[in-house]
Amino acid sequence: MKNFFQLISSTDFLLLFERFNPLEAESPGLRNCGGRVLATTITSPEFLPPFARSTMDGFAVRARDTFGCSESEPALLSIIGEIAMGSSGKDVTLHPAQTAHIWTGGELADRADAVVMIEYTHQLDEYTVEIFKPVAPGENILRAGDDIKRGDEVLKKGRKLRPQDLGVLAGLGITSVPVHRQPVVAIISTGDELVSADSRPGPGQIRDINSTTLAALVEESGGIARTVGIIGDDYESMSAACEKALQTADMVLLSGGSSVGKRDFTLKVLKRLEHARLLAHGVAIRPGKPTILAQIGNKALFGLPGHVGSAMVVFYLFVRPLLRRLSGESTELGLTSIQAVTGEQIPSAIGREEYVRVQLVAQQGGRPPLAIPVYGKSGLLSPLVKADGLLVIDRDSEGMDKDTTARVLLFPLVN
Amino acid sequence: MKNFFQLISSTDFLLLFERFNPLEAESPGLRNCGGRVLATTITSPEFLPPFARSTMDGFAVRARDTFGCSESEPALLSIIGEIAMGSSGKDVTLHPAQTAHIWTGGELADRADAVVMIEYTHQLDEYTVEIFKPVAPGENILRAGDDIKRGDEVLKKGRKLRPQDLGVLAGLGITSVPVHRQPVVAIISTGDELVSADSRPGPGQIRDINSTTLAALVEESGGIARTVGIIGDDYESMSAACEKALQTADMVLLSGGSSVGKRDFTLKVLKRLEHARLLAHGVAIRPGKPTILAQIGNKALFGLPGHVGSAMVVFYLFVRPLLRRLSGESTELGLTSIQAVTGEQIPSAIGREEYVRVQLVAQQGGRPPLAIPVYGKSGLLSPLVKADGLLVIDRDSEGMDKDTTARVLLFPLVN
Repeated sequence: MKNFFQLISSTDFLLLFERFNPLEAESPGLRNCGGRVLATTITSPEFLPPFARSTMDGFAVRARDTFGCSESEPALLSIIGEIAMGSSGKDVTLHPAQTAHIWTGGELADRADAVVMIEYTHQLDEYTVEIFKPVAPGENILRAGDDIKRGDEVLKKGRKLRPQDLGVLAGLGITSVPVHRQPVVAIISTGDELVSADSRPGPGQIRDINSTTLAALVEESGGIARTVGIIGDDYESMSAACEKALQTADMVLLSGGSSVGKRDFTLKVLKRLEHARLLAHGVAIRPGKPTILAQIGNKALFGLPGHVGSAMVVFYLFVRPLLRRLSGESTELGLTSIQAVTGEQIPSAIGREEYVRVQLVAQQGGRPPLAIPVYGKSGLLSPLVKADGLLVIDRDSEGMDKDTTARVLLFPLVN
Repeated sequence: MKNFFQLISSTDFLLLFERFNPLEAESPGLRNCGGRVLATTITSPEFLPPFARSTMDGFAVRARDTFGCSESEPALLSIIGEIAMGSSGKDVTLHPAQTAHIWTGGELADRADAVVMIEYTHQLDEYTVEIFKPVAPGENILRAGDDIKRGDEVLKKGRKLRPQDLGVLAGLGITSVPVHRQPVVAIISTGDELVSADSRPGPGQIRDINSTTLAALVEESGGIARTVGIIGDDYESMSAACEKALQTADMVLLSGGSSVGKRDFTLKVLKRLEHARLLAHGVAIRPGKPTILAQIGNKALFGLPGHVGSAMVVFYLFVRPLLRRLSGESTELGLTSIQAVTGEQIPSAIGREEYVRVQLVAQQGGRPPLAIPVYGKSGLLSPLVKADGLLVIDRDSEGMDKDTTARVLLFPLVN
């Protein structure tokens, strides 16, 4: 396995994802397709509506029978029946000066070409109705195929399916569509000091936070999370855990092995993995510099920082875009980005991008929100709970003055 | 049951939700709490970190032993051991001029009060290290409770739980928290003309689109969708279906019964329901005017427009906020709202709010996107697929000129 150790930029890191292909398609039922990505373009197998339909409650008419009518000189039409919902309009044929009751969505009567809204009519008796307003042919109706024609492109490949998209597919009788499989992500926390969240830590021990956080992040990003658990800082166990995880997962997130003492450990494990190719070791961002990415076939292995705050930044910047790519989406962050104004001076170092956790405070008068850095010593958890997003400082900047406009990537709120 | 039939404003409609209470709490495991809403404020049962920890790889020291040292005059300390990860620092006691190896996250040695980063040291042999830079007491360490103290408020009642929130809870050993139960929503499509999505419609028949769309909308909003299926326009069947659905669901969405011909039908069904109270019948918005809301205990029944495009608007404006309230959140739309510029003149009528489906087109130079109305005859589905959101025109406006700034509510993209 080839190693190279220079820091790369976040842009170059994202370019590495071109080496990965979207996962194969599967065809679950529509009910399981919300948020999934279409693997093929869908064309319509039929006309929608399949027949001419009324868009109003009223009377189906031959438009010419209403021409010239008005409030003072209504057209007088003979009611020859009602087109009940779900029954065929073809069973009712309109001859000159004839009409039929029709409801919204009902099939138009044979030879009818328009519908008069009930508001512009006055029924004199069971068989006679006055029409006060003329209609043009086609008025208040949809013709067969007005909505979608057979062969029309309905939804494009790569579309992330929304509720209304699923509705349109249902309307066309398409109850299953090919969507890319959701990536399965194995999550391994490493560290001799770790115990599971449901354990009481002994002296020198601390609970595993990353498994819970990363699993929730993966699921929020549309992946399927599988937490492997805690693996001690032991070469054999780590190698075995990675090999096993790669058998069933599309991606492995190994967190914890990025401090000076442990980083070489992850690299050593990677070296032993068959067909593993190290794509990146170090990225010019802060936090997140010691990030590792390796490729094994179409599978990815990330070495993430041990601190959950840093691991989250790397997740949003890199893991999430690769999950998107595997799911068939574009390789973008997929985070909402807003303009904010710095609430204080924020220092930074030239040569690396900084992602500063900030809290957003609404301002009066339509001004963009204030972004207040949520600092805290390295390793603190409480700032994570306070932060609303990450303020971005580019690599050519020495920081930002107070009252400067800045871009903030918002943490997604589930739903 | 009391009936009142005047149109109410959308603001007044939302106020009706104050009559509903958030659902009771349940305590699933953390893995199932993403996006759920805390039913109680969580305070910390313990100190975090539980012991003084290093935030760097390096040497645990008594800070005073480093005072005055420099590159030219390093402090010489005796290495008395290493604090392995997961082992107790208390087992290593530092006497004057002594030090111990320590890793990021390791427990501080007994009597140590700071850590020197490895970068500022030079190890002469197994037992001796030179320190080039003095550290102050507390430097590069977290003291016990520096992050969170016992009794500290960690997360407030009403908080929608994010991945990092779950991580912090895991770190505190809290593996289950009380969150409001997710609302169960029964979805009933009514109409004699409807057949299921997997059927071939006969003459005058059309496939049920609303069940699929509403189920996806409910799930996207954090509810649990139960599609009851299609009920014909038959008083007895509809009554029976509503009564049955209300036994297990927190909310019933009845769609289809809102055209002139069918509206009275829904009302008649409501009248027969025991303890049902009609809260609203008609709202001054377009589309969505014929919306019906009834309360049965703490349960809600909505009568939604039959056309899926109108039903979606009512869902986003009213159903979703009530689902949020039942879930323990604030009664807000919960939709992202952006500024856009109208791409053409958009007419509207005074006295009602208009929600116009628009497509957004990005503009150059940081200008807000253009909002282009996606019109189409009433009843069309294809505009739904094209639209990105709803442009809002308030009730005092006669419409908007081209090139006017307008507010657009974005349809949520799942993930």
